[in-house]
Amino acid sequence: MAEPLRIALAGLGTVGAGVIRLVEANQALIARRAGRPIEIVAVSARDRSRKRGVDLSPYAWEDDMVILGEKPNVDVVVELVGGADGPALACARTTIEAGKALVTANKAMIAHHGLELAAKAEAAKVALKFEAAVAGGIPVIKGLREGAAANAIERVYGILNGTCNYILSTMEDTGRDFADVLAEAQAKGYAEADPAFDIEGTDAAHKLAILASIAFGSKVDFGSVDTAGITRLRAADIAQADALGYVIRLIGMADTEVHNGSNTLFQRVKPHLVPFDHPLAHVDGATNAVVAEGNFSGRLLFQGAGAGEGPTASAVVADLIDIARSTMGGGEVGAPFSVPVAELEAMAPADTGHRLSRSYIRFMVADRPGVLAEITAALRDAGVSIESLIQKGRAGVDGAVMVAMVTHEGPESAVSKALELLDGSDSLTEPPLVMNLLGD
Amino acid sequence: MAEPLRIALAGLGTVGAGVIRLVEANQALIARRAGRPIEIVAVSARDRSRKRGVDLSPYAWEDDMVILGEKPNVDVVVELVGGADGPALACARTTIEAGKALVTANKAMIAHHGLELAAKAEAAKVALKFEAAVAGGIPVIKGLREGAAANAIERVYGILNGTCNYILSTMEDTGRDFADVLAEAQAKGYAEADPAFDIEGTDAAHKLAILASIAFGSKVDFGSVDTAGITRLRAADIAQADALGYVIRLIGMADTEVHNGSNTLFQRVKPHLVPFDHPLAHVDGATNAVVAEGNFSGRLLFQGAGAGEGPTASAVVADLIDIARSTMGGGEVGAPFSVPVAELEAMAPADTGHRLSRSYIRFMVADRPGVLAEITAALRDAGVSIESLIQKGRAGVDGAVMVAMVTHEGPESAVSKALELLDGSDSLTEPPLVMNLLGD
Repeated sequence: MAEPLRIALAGLGTVGAGVIRLVEANQALIARRAGRPIEIVAVSARDRSRKRGVDLSPYAWEDDMVILGEKPNVDVVVELVGGADGPALACARTTIEAGKALVTANKAMIAHHGLELAAKAEAAKVALKFEAAVAGGIPVIKGLREGAAANAIERVYGILNGTCNYILSTMEDTGRDFADVLAEAQAKGYAEADPAFDIEGTDAAHKLAILASIAFGSKVDFGSVDTAGITRLRAADIAQADALGYVIRLIGMADTEVHNGSNTLFQRVKPHLVPFDHPLAHVDGATNAVVAEGNFSGRLLFQGAGAGEGPTASAVVADLIDIARSTMGGGEVGAPFSVPVAELEAMAPADTGHRLSRSYIRFMVADRPGVLAEITAALRDAGVSIESLIQKGRAGVDGAVMVAMVTHEGPESAVSKALELLDGSDSLTEPPLVMNLLGD
Repeated sequence: MAEPLRIALAGLGTVGAGVIRLVEANQALIARRAGRPIEIVAVSARDRSRKRGVDLSPYAWEDDMVILGEKPNVDVVVELVGGADGPALACARTTIEAGKALVTANKAMIAHHGLELAAKAEAAKVALKFEAAVAGGIPVIKGLREGAAANAIERVYGILNGTCNYILSTMEDTGRDFADVLAEAQAKGYAEADPAFDIEGTDAAHKLAILASIAFGSKVDFGSVDTAGITRLRAADIAQADALGYVIRLIGMADTEVHNGSNTLFQRVKPHLVPFDHPLAHVDGATNAVVAEGNFSGRLLFQGAGAGEGPTASAVVADLIDIARSTMGGGEVGAPFSVPVAELEAMAPADTGHRLSRSYIRFMVADRPGVLAEITAALRDAGVSIESLIQKGRAGVDGAVMVAMVTHEGPESAVSKALELLDGSDSLTEPPLVMNLLGD
């Protein structure tokens, strides 16, 4: 058997411990599949004394994770520290600069600094791989970058945040309100103590920006993802969607559009109404799922566990096996974002105003005469055509009444215009909530 | 840009024409992703004059597909002729023996001769790739072989034949009987004029045998797949399953089991009752879907178009891009079945008698007193415990009555024993039909 691929682990949290457990448990089959053993030789973390439930004694301890890549007996550094900057980024840079391969699960770092790191890796002819950064254990980076590589991707979309999906499907099953379910999810460990990154859509936006780059050959552009979270959803929205034949899911979606002869990039993370007969409507709990629509493949769906120790470790070690296999013959694994960074296209954010959508719009309004007339007049003046309108009876702690409607298909700018006309109206007790209906 | 990867196409049916169309339509993006152009240089087929809707004039015509791999300007031969033996196999052998890579969509050939071809390819250090042989455009070979490579796979199962799934979901939607829906599917081109390979389960068994080898590191063993098709299903079975909360799908399933200290291989293709809340219950029409359960990844689902010109061409060209990328640096793409043929384990077929299942058993019986007592006595004597029993009223062209039941979980041998006790009984107007219920 050939020489082992020698790994250093930076970061020994849940995923780091999972990687150690996986490499130990599946050692023999990994060696058979990779053509050589994968061997952890060094580890590093902030706190050496923390209990982790794995025996670290076989591995050299390194206090400074930034220099792991410089150790002569290390072939690949696995960065599992997290955070877009700080030690994770320093570790990634020094590793690649030292001519070593880098594997990471760090979506924030790749969304913010992926292009810089990929350019460095291409120059150094080393692998930079980040399967675990998107959708946990699902091999969706590989699915897009390699499996669907023959296709022009027309659209990529999916459920990219397990915490949000757990909350939404629990709200759906129990009829409870957002804050209540969030608190329970935190108590059970399904949501972080500071859940903002998840519930405000940032985590999903990181993943979407990475997927979009690979799908469309565009430069990663996290900053222009139009992002909304799930914090404003009410149990009543979910009940209303259900009555209309939909579930609510936080969907990340990206496509491209030619504008004045140039490609523009559309990227949005937002709650959507998903029809019962769509595959994503059946994705419950912390599961993730990604759909890629290729011009020859048609619709491909990848589904599985979006987070967790085992699934994330599975994705990290898959990257290591790819590196072990590819470097057997001295080859390389190709460009991190599928095409070389220098060939990625800088695409301006797409104008969304003319996009045609059916929308769900929900108003919380004061309970007095004339309010409905004011809203419907604004919609009429903006050119929004209402398909169905539901006025719920008086209720709510604040005495407000819920008015929800679904529009006919029309330009998104018309809905925006209607909301502008209503902006500042004292008939509304909170800003309207708009969600798109997911089409075919 | 580097030198093109030069392709010869053997076989110009639907898929061959699709590969030509894809390579032309997506030429620029393929070159960006592969790092070099993919260029078709030669083509071959049985009948040069046939209309194919693609312009063959840019490509050298070769009458004898068997020698395509021997042409000095060819790097890869794509075999799309079909058939386990004959010209396809001769072409595959000469290609690999000439030191050229082979890409094929030929599931029958890989199921029967894959080990021989893989051993030859490993010896010659050339790629042998067959993504298109299983589940059309879905990158499931890649998903298992690479994406899930870090895992011990505990079970792999799925919907592997689009024709059967189209027929079953149409029966479900329309309440019509098998023969009727099959005839319509043939008229529409969704089923072959000779549909036996599809509807009797052989095609799904080919694919399952390939998946099982990759998943479990076992030698491909098509011969021991326990195979049943969908020809005996009646509209009444589907209606009955629906009433119980299930749909019927033709499922290919494989796992391993230790018996007397050795791994044994379970492989079965058979209609199953799939509970409404299982992801496979929502796979309709000609769609395929494969579930792989890894010991770290958990359940991964891959879904998409299982056949057709575009999806199959997408999988073929994905293999070509993999080869183009890997040979950039002189590397190789690894063992065709994930581990080298010499290390694949020869596993005996698993004994199925002690497997625990819940079963649906349907009898067609003569409409006279005492028949139900005879059946239930046989089940009791064999130790089969009945969970629910449905006797349909008299009906049927042949005057027979349908008696269907679902058993409690028990060993499959008990059901077999009961059927043996009833074998030859003149109360039964046709042999009983047994289907397993798909568990979690």
